[in-house]
Amino acid sequence: MLGIEEIGYYIPAGRISNYGRKEQYGIDDNFIENKIGVKQVALKGTDEETSDLCIKAFEALCAKQEVDCSDIEALVVVTQNPDQNIPHVSAMVHGALDLPGACACFDISLGCSGFVYALAVFQAFMTANDMKKGLLFTADPYSKVVDPNDKNTSLLFGDAAAVTLVSDSPSLVPGKFTFGTAGVEHQKLMNIGGSLFMNGRAVFNFSAKTVPGDIRLMADKNGIALEEIDLFLLHQGSKIIVETIADKLEIPREKVPYRTYDYGNTISSSIPILLADELHGAAKTIAICGFGVGLSWASGLLTRV
Amino acid sequence: MLGIEEIGYYIPAGRISNYGRKEQYGIDDNFIENKIGVKQVALKGTDEETSDLCIKAFEALCAKQEVDCSDIEALVVVTQNPDQNIPHVSAMVHGALDLPGACACFDISLGCSGFVYALAVFQAFMTANDMKKGLLFTADPYSKVVDPNDKNTSLLFGDAAAVTLVSDSPSLVPGKFTFGTAGVEHQKLMNIGGSLFMNGRAVFNFSAKTVPGDIRLMADKNGIALEEIDLFLLHQGSKIIVETIADKLEIPREKVPYRTYDYGNTISSSIPILLADELHGAAKTIAICGFGVGLSWASGLLTRV
Repeated sequence: MLGIEEIGYYIPAGRISNYGRKEQYGIDDNFIENKIGVKQVALKGTDEETSDLCIKAFEALCAKQEVDCSDIEALVVVTQNPDQNIPHVSAMVHGALDLPGACACFDISLGCSGFVYALAVFQAFMTANDMKKGLLFTADPYSKVVDPNDKNTSLLFGDAAAVTLVSDSPSLVPGKFTFGTAGVEHQKLMNIGGSLFMNGRAVFNFSAKTVPGDIRLMADKNGIALEEIDLFLLHQGSKIIVETIADKLEIPREKVPYRTYDYGNTISSSIPILLADELHGAAKTIAICGFGVGLSWASGLLTRV
Repeated sequence: MLGIEEIGYYIPAGRISNYGRKEQYGIDDNFIENKIGVKQVALKGTDEETSDLCIKAFEALCAKQEVDCSDIEALVVVTQNPDQNIPHVSAMVHGALDLPGACACFDISLGCSGFVYALAVFQAFMTANDMKKGLLFTADPYSKVVDPNDKNTSLLFGDAAAVTLVSDSPSLVPGKFTFGTAGVEHQKLMNIGGSLFMNGRAVFNFSAKTVPGDIRLMADKNGIALEEIDLFLLHQGSKIIVETIADKLEIPREKVPYRTYDYGNTISSSIPILLADELHGAAKTIAICGFGVGLSWASGLLTRV
């Protein structure tokens, strides 16, 4: 049985403070701390490319867990901000890490639902092809597309990358997943002429309406009651959306952490960054749920081995 | 058991003749007809986006085979030339076809190896999640990135899209796959500053060296001798590479068709376009092999039900 063995992540040291933009955007401390829940956003260096963020996440993984690169049989990068579109970032990372020729590499293009989707895809792909060790990267540096003068996006999104070691020596194993798409609403969050556009209210309403039902459905599919789940790691879209979803599900907020005050919404890396700190913790069952660009969502249940 | 039920494809009507570029590039009829094997390349309209090509491929599928959109549980688009990077093209196609909310959608970023890889990924993903019907699109219009004055690329690549209906009523089912990556060679074929660069000789040498061994390995994994395989549908990189691989494997060339004289190398759509015409044919076993951008390769075996 494959599952998650370890997670490494990298959050660049650069920051833009939202307190320094209060006047520009007409916002106050309450908005920063309690509504969006982002005091500062992480910013990569201009010389750091998406593949570089992946390599630094891999170095963080190796600091926790020995990884023999000659064992790696598959590598996926989840991104919608690749170094360039041709080739896939996974090939560049494969080259930089000097992985074996027989290693399967591909990128998955998804946004904030990307980690949950990709974990399901990667687990299925590795299992079907009898693979034992693979690296699942998430790296979506939105600073490449965010207009620093756009209040709807620039206060929220931070740069980061994570890498999840999926192996046959797991700490957590996934159960059944749920997936969904509202393609007719894709215009609510999209790249227009090289810049990110987001209708924040529409994306909030979609998330508040869709995600609680999807988490209930996922729990049903896994034959578990919501109150039996120890921890809910939701995509950290904003503090208010995480709290809204927790309240709609009538789950105590302490079971649904929001922790990204100091680096922002890191897209598909938000869940693995949280999960890294829970991987060897007490929670026996952890629900994960990503939602955003597409519009798209996915939920899953992780159980401790 | 899931597999390929039907395939639809769309090749835009626009063409650029290579005969009309003989003087510009200092090439002759022998080069056009026997070396690259591309008399003209297909060109999409300037108003046609990647998602539009997908929709037209889907219409071609529906002309062959009734498809009830409410049955579609998963949709993948393989592309490295999306409409834009955010959102994924699959979400846009999902919206245009008005597919169910519970349909899983994601894009896979791969080039010429993309169909074979994605068939393995899609089959594994659908099987693991108990899905019965899905749409696997390939659509990579290189006219978006090819410099019309670059001899190395503009004579070769054509625009097209294909859609493969993967279902539990298959005509052909996949066996075991092989995959590979030479990430250290990714610079041989990549987008630089918005334009495609290709070191044609290096990519040819890589393909001629790597692909025959991978096809042998794939046959071994499937427990079949090369001479028992009825048909080999290779990525149609050029006529000379397809013939070189056939000759290295000592397979009669009539078992290894090259057919893309009139539209060119359509990247990840080249194999499904060939396969569409063989889907209800006599071949009982069909090897498929894609190779290119990454550098990347994958092989598989399809067996008639």
